[in-house]
Amino acid sequence: MSYLIKNGWILNENGEKTQADIRVTGETITAIGKLDATDNETVIDAKGLLVSPGFVDLHVHFREPGGEKKETIETGAKAAARGGYTTVAAMPNTRPVPDTKEQMEWVQNRIKETSCVRVLPYASITIRQIGDEMTNFEALKEAGAFAFTDDGVGIQTAGMMYEAMKRAAAIDKAIVAHCEDNSLIYGGSVHEGTFSKANGLNGIPSVCESVHIARDVLLAEAANCHYHVCHISTKESVRVVRDAKKAGIRVTAEVSPHHLLLCDEDIPGLDTNYKMNPPLRSPEDRAALIEGLLDGTIDFIATDHAPHTEEEKNTEMKLAPFGIVGLETAFPLLYTHFVKNGSWSLKQLIDYMTIKPCEAFGLPYGTLQTGQAADITLIDLEKEAVIDKETFLSKGKNTPFNGISCTGWPVATIAAGKLAYEEGRLVK
Amino acid sequence: MSYLIKNGWILNENGEKTQADIRVTGETITAIGKLDATDNETVIDAKGLLVSPGFVDLHVHFREPGGEKKETIETGAKAAARGGYTTVAAMPNTRPVPDTKEQMEWVQNRIKETSCVRVLPYASITIRQIGDEMTNFEALKEAGAFAFTDDGVGIQTAGMMYEAMKRAAAIDKAIVAHCEDNSLIYGGSVHEGTFSKANGLNGIPSVCESVHIARDVLLAEAANCHYHVCHISTKESVRVVRDAKKAGIRVTAEVSPHHLLLCDEDIPGLDTNYKMNPPLRSPEDRAALIEGLLDGTIDFIATDHAPHTEEEKNTEMKLAPFGIVGLETAFPLLYTHFVKNGSWSLKQLIDYMTIKPCEAFGLPYGTLQTGQAADITLIDLEKEAVIDKETFLSKGKNTPFNGISCTGWPVATIAAGKLAYEEGRLVK
Repeated sequence: MSYLIKNGWILNENGEKTQADIRVTGETITAIGKLDATDNETVIDAKGLLVSPGFVDLHVHFREPGGEKKETIETGAKAAARGGYTTVAAMPNTRPVPDTKEQMEWVQNRIKETSCVRVLPYASITIRQIGDEMTNFEALKEAGAFAFTDDGVGIQTAGMMYEAMKRAAAIDKAIVAHCEDNSLIYGGSVHEGTFSKANGLNGIPSVCESVHIARDVLLAEAANCHYHVCHISTKESVRVVRDAKKAGIRVTAEVSPHHLLLCDEDIPGLDTNYKMNPPLRSPEDRAALIEGLLDGTIDFIATDHAPHTEEEKNTEMKLAPFGIVGLETAFPLLYTHFVKNGSWSLKQLIDYMTIKPCEAFGLPYGTLQTGQAADITLIDLEKEAVIDKETFLSKGKNTPFNGISCTGWPVATIAAGKLAYEEGRLVK
Repeated sequence: MSYLIKNGWILNENGEKTQADIRVTGETITAIGKLDATDNETVIDAKGLLVSPGFVDLHVHFREPGGEKKETIETGAKAAARGGYTTVAAMPNTRPVPDTKEQMEWVQNRIKETSCVRVLPYASITIRQIGDEMTNFEALKEAGAFAFTDDGVGIQTAGMMYEAMKRAAAIDKAIVAHCEDNSLIYGGSVHEGTFSKANGLNGIPSVCESVHIARDVLLAEAANCHYHVCHISTKESVRVVRDAKKAGIRVTAEVSPHHLLLCDEDIPGLDTNYKMNPPLRSPEDRAALIEGLLDGTIDFIATDHAPHTEEEKNTEMKLAPFGIVGLETAFPLLYTHFVKNGSWSLKQLIDYMTIKPCEAFGLPYGTLQTGQAADITLIDLEKEAVIDKETFLSKGKNTPFNGISCTGWPVATIAAGKLAYEEGRLVK
């Protein structure tokens, strides 16, 4: 299949708008510039649209196997494509956990069979993510594991994390950490702060996260391992990562859209669509996250897309599962809040969602270049619409942003040269 | 009892030698200047001697109760006085541990009955220092606990340390931490480095210490607790403390003479007198400790005086207990190495052993001032002698410095107005 994306504009190195047509042949970009259509290619009229590299989200939960009621690889991938994502990395906290070569191969096949975007599967660090016994890293790497993580739970002992880091470093893979010290959770369902006190809820103190990061950056230094911090959420964590980077430690970090956009004081009431892990923190934490993203302490944005059924979320704050969806709302929310109404440049936002995650993990995606994978997202920056969870292609409707009006929506997504999503008005 | 210390010289604010006589009446200094003897006072001729504030060592092991073969409060105090120390803080890893009001009162009485210097007893953080259950901080404070520590073992769970810090902060006491993650000890008896590899010994990696400090400074920040790091030994630990101080966290740290003087490459062979915990680290670690002391990251020097019987130490490296004595060798070694043959000023060294520990813990000692406690040490900076463990007043002879020639020896010590030690040629 061959496409010619005509009349759109791209952002150049300096973030300036530049008119450019893009030719896609098979899975790759084969030409960029002023191009005329050839016979056997489908023209996509991108007039007035931003032609962006496909977004990259290195933290999604597709729930398959075992949680198909919440999401499947197929529905998750469709949601990603609709959100403009062409590459996602799927967390291993499924049932079963991909902690063996066979399990990983099953997931890979499932991706091949059902996914419309590139899905990079994480393998778990420990068997069944219980934290006691390490998985076979070498075998899992061979089976295509993207990196290793027990996301959803923290690695509780330093010794286990240190051994995992040494093993990961030996096979040039990253350790990706959900940072949570179980002895500091206190049965909390929200951040230990204004909201928890006002509502008589147990709160999860910021140290629950920051102490693991502080531990792990030292272990990563000693093991010379690439250590990546999932969903960073506290100002102290940002400081620890900043100091670690200053010391030359190979640490990267991601932040979620919801932690950039909301803090605990924004939680309107006991609405479980505002319950995620880590929780929404204080205004000072949110400010520190934004500052950390802007000064490079935090490397990129990742949604931590975590679908649950409405039934699961339809209970009290203490009992509801943690997590919200994010793939289909990330760009509109972030563009509206930080670019259109904020101080970020468009390029900054695009980079946080494309090239930055790829640079952090050495992935050959996230840019528009001849010869590179044809991962392309067309964005209508003028389009205004209200977030409507009923239109989500994700099975998960658990979002706190339902009803919010946003500007700037992805309207078509080409993943590895295939049209993965399109609002039905572009392709001729 | 009243003393007049005549003809000695003291160091003024700028570290300059100044002739000054000092009158001691009862427990306090009552006059400093050009003084003439009165009838009923004993004159101590301090001609040619440095008259220093008494040294303060906030980390000693006096082994009583339960370890009287190694040391008693009495013998330890005598060793302290001989080393020029007038105040010491005694660690609670005795048998039994002072983890109740009654035990603490027993120790206090023992100190009153047998000690010739001021001994401030630590109480333990957890019952029997096992790490599971917190002691009654309020009761132990009432019984005179100086601060709280489980020295000898690390507090393994963040939750326990956090609760302890909150409790200590509430009663304005410090948490003093032996930083050691049990999951990172690997059965090591020396530092994981050159010496361990050359001798086929399990090594204790630096992260074993540094990860606890990194955890604890964040907990201390959240709990607003004074957190003190015992016997800091690694370059990463110095960096973590430096960053924490920069962030305004109430952390202080001590370093031992042996970690300033020796590294693992100095260990001549399988000599258990070079075995202590934390172990002697790399040359780079030693350099970082010196730098950290000089730039204020590390607050003061403490010996971690840890006597063992010669029988206990007379075994293989793996089996011997950790620890060396230090009270009777600290000043001569440090003065010789860092002042006489080094770049430190005399005042720097004296401050690290007197006012700095007192400032860190708010103790009213460590200076020569009218009205202050008469804690005074006379030092012959010209005296040259060889360290001879057989002359030690400590029961412990376990030192790696035996036979080393040093210059600069304490020759008399007045503790709270009483002559606690004197070489027999001064008092008239």
